[in-house]
Amino acid sequence: MKAPERIRIAVYGLGQIGLQTAKAILGRPALQLVGAIDTDPAKQQRDVADLSGLTRPSGVRVSDRAEDVLGVSRPDVVILTTGSRFKQVLPQIRQCVEARTNVVSSCEELLMPHVNYAAQARELNKFAISRDVSVLGTGVNPGFVMDTFALAVTAPCVDLTSIRIERVVDASTRRENLQKKVGAGLTRLKFRRAVNKGELGHVGLLESTHLVAEGLGFKLDKVKETVDPILAKKSMKTPHVTVQVGEVAGLHHVCRGYRNRKEVVTLDLQMYLGAKKPTDRITVEGNPNVTVSFEGGVAGDEATVAMLIATAPSMVKLEAGLRTMVDVPVPHYRNGF
Amino acid sequence: MKAPERIRIAVYGLGQIGLQTAKAILGRPALQLVGAIDTDPAKQQRDVADLSGLTRPSGVRVSDRAEDVLGVSRPDVVILTTGSRFKQVLPQIRQCVEARTNVVSSCEELLMPHVNYAAQARELNKFAISRDVSVLGTGVNPGFVMDTFALAVTAPCVDLTSIRIERVVDASTRRENLQKKVGAGLTRLKFRRAVNKGELGHVGLLESTHLVAEGLGFKLDKVKETVDPILAKKSMKTPHVTVQVGEVAGLHHVCRGYRNRKEVVTLDLQMYLGAKKPTDRITVEGNPNVTVSFEGGVAGDEATVAMLIATAPSMVKLEAGLRTMVDVPVPHYRNGF
Repeated sequence: MKAPERIRIAVYGLGQIGLQTAKAILGRPALQLVGAIDTDPAKQQRDVADLSGLTRPSGVRVSDRAEDVLGVSRPDVVILTTGSRFKQVLPQIRQCVEARTNVVSSCEELLMPHVNYAAQARELNKFAISRDVSVLGTGVNPGFVMDTFALAVTAPCVDLTSIRIERVVDASTRRENLQKKVGAGLTRLKFRRAVNKGELGHVGLLESTHLVAEGLGFKLDKVKETVDPILAKKSMKTPHVTVQVGEVAGLHHVCRGYRNRKEVVTLDLQMYLGAKKPTDRITVEGNPNVTVSFEGGVAGDEATVAMLIATAPSMVKLEAGLRTMVDVPVPHYRNGF
Repeated sequence: MKAPERIRIAVYGLGQIGLQTAKAILGRPALQLVGAIDTDPAKQQRDVADLSGLTRPSGVRVSDRAEDVLGVSRPDVVILTTGSRFKQVLPQIRQCVEARTNVVSSCEELLMPHVNYAAQARELNKFAISRDVSVLGTGVNPGFVMDTFALAVTAPCVDLTSIRIERVVDASTRRENLQKKVGAGLTRLKFRRAVNKGELGHVGLLESTHLVAEGLGFKLDKVKETVDPILAKKSMKTPHVTVQVGEVAGLHHVCRGYRNRKEVVTLDLQMYLGAKKPTDRITVEGNPNVTVSFEGGVAGDEATVAMLIATAPSMVKLEAGLRTMVDVPVPHYRNGF
C-alpha cells in the first residue's frame, strides 16, 4: 500500500558474491548503495562500480574502516559476505549492530548459529535487541532451496510425517572455489582425511537441517551427518582441476534428523563434477503427500545474490534480534528492488 | 526462540472448510478453539467437535451471536470461511475488527480486495489500523499455489522477464460444489451465458494475478481474462453430475497481465472432470530461468485448511491493517500448531 522507500545499503566484503551484490544494487532504483567495506589493500579507495565491471562511477569508494563507513553512510542494512563461519563474521556483525544497522549475511553458519554456537548466538540476539536491529543469515544453500523453500512446500499439508530434500549440483559448471570445496581431484584417502579435519563438506547443511526441523516444530533427538566421496567413472578436466578415473569427483553429504528414533528430516546433497541431472527435489510424506522439483536445479552464486537482495528490504521491518528465515516474509524477486 | 504461546482461535462459518478447520485446531496443542459462529439454525448450541465428527466434546458450542462470542471468548484470531465474495464477508470482518480481533479468511476476493473494491479496501485497512489488528485473505488457490508459492519460486532470480503459472485440477475428485462451479454437465450455450452473468469461472484468479504482479513490482497496464469451456470427449458420471460427449466437462480460465504491452504474468487454470495429469507448474523467464512443478498437483480443500492454520499464528505479529500474503512469513506446516 505504501509508497516504496529507498533502502540504504552498505556492502561488507567485496569477494565475488559481494561485488555481484553491489552491482545488482547499483542497477535497482529502490536500493541505494551508500558504503563499501573490504580489507583488501588492492581495493582501497576504488569505486565499487569499477570493481564490479560497471563503467559508470557509483561515487562509493571502498574503505577498510568499517566504523567510519557505517557512521558516515548510515545504511539501513549491511549485506555482509566476508565468510562462511560464524566466528569469522561475528566481530563484523557486532560492529554493524553497534552502529544500529541491520545485517543480512551469506555466512552459512549464521543461518542457524544456535546449532554450534548457542551461547554466542544468545548474546548476539540480546545485543541486536538492545540496539533495535535485526540480524539474518540467508543465501541459496543454505537459505533457500534446502530449507526455506522446502518449508514453503509443506504449507498445504495438514499433517506431516517426514520430509526429504535432495539437491544434485554439477560442480563442473561452478567456480574454482566450489570445485575445491567438493574435493575434486583428491584421492579417496586424502578426501577422508580432509573430511575428518572438517575441511570438506558443505558448510550449512547441518544448519539447514535444524532450520527445517525448527520450522516444522520437530524437536530432534539427534542428527547423523555423513560425508562420502563420489568417485570419477571417467577422467574429467575443468579449467580449475583434473580428475582421473577413481579419484574424487565430488562429495555426497547427508544429514538425517531423528525424532522419537524415526528419521523425519533428511537433507541429501551431491555436488560433483559431471553430475548428469542437476536437480532440487522435495518429497513430503504427510496429508497430502507432496513432491516438488526444480527442473535442472537452482544455480548457485547468482541465486545467493538474489536472496541477499530479496531479504534486505525486509530487514528494516523485522522484529529486532537474531532472526532466521522462518521469520521473514516470503522472499521473491521484486522489480526495482 | 521464544516459548510458543497458545493461540486463541474462533471459527466464523461452519461449512465444510470451517468444520475441517475447527477439527484441525482441536487436534493441535498450541492452538485453542475458543469460539464458533454460524447462522445455520440446525447448528445452534451444538458442540463443534460433534459437528466435526469428533467423539470427544470440545466444550465450544455454535452460536449465531457473533458479537457475544467475540466479546466473551476474546480470540486472538478469527478464521472466517463464510463466503467467496468480499462484500459478503465485509460486515463480518468489520464485526471482528471492531472487537479487536485479527481475521484470516478463505474469502477468495479478500486475497487482493483492492482489485475490485479499492475504496472499501482502503476503508477496511484504516479501520483495522485504528483497532490495531490485521486482516488477511489466504487459501490454497487463491493464496498459495498460483500466487504466494509462485512468488517464492522467483526468489533465486536476479532478473525476471515473465512468469507463467499453470494449474490443472481433476474436478471429478472434488466436492459437488466445485463440480458445479466448473460448469460440468452444461451445454456450451448455457456455459457461455453463465460466464457472461459472472456465475462461472474461478473466483480469485484475477486476485492472484494482481498479487503476483504486485509482489514482482510490475505495474500492469491491463489484465485480459478469458473463461472457456472444456468439452467432454467421452461421457462421464460422478456421484454429483453426468456429462455427455460434447457437453461441458469443466473450464479453462486464463488471466494475462500486460506491462508495457508485453505479457508478463500469466495464470492458466484448467478444472475439469477427467483431467489426466493434475499438476501445478511455474515457469519463470529470467536470470536464471526457473521451472518448478508439484508432481500430481496440490489437492484443494484440505490444503486451504492447512493454509488458514499455517497463517493464523502469524496474524498476531503482523503489522496492523489489511495485509496480503507477501507480508506474511513463509507459510509452512508446524507440528502442534
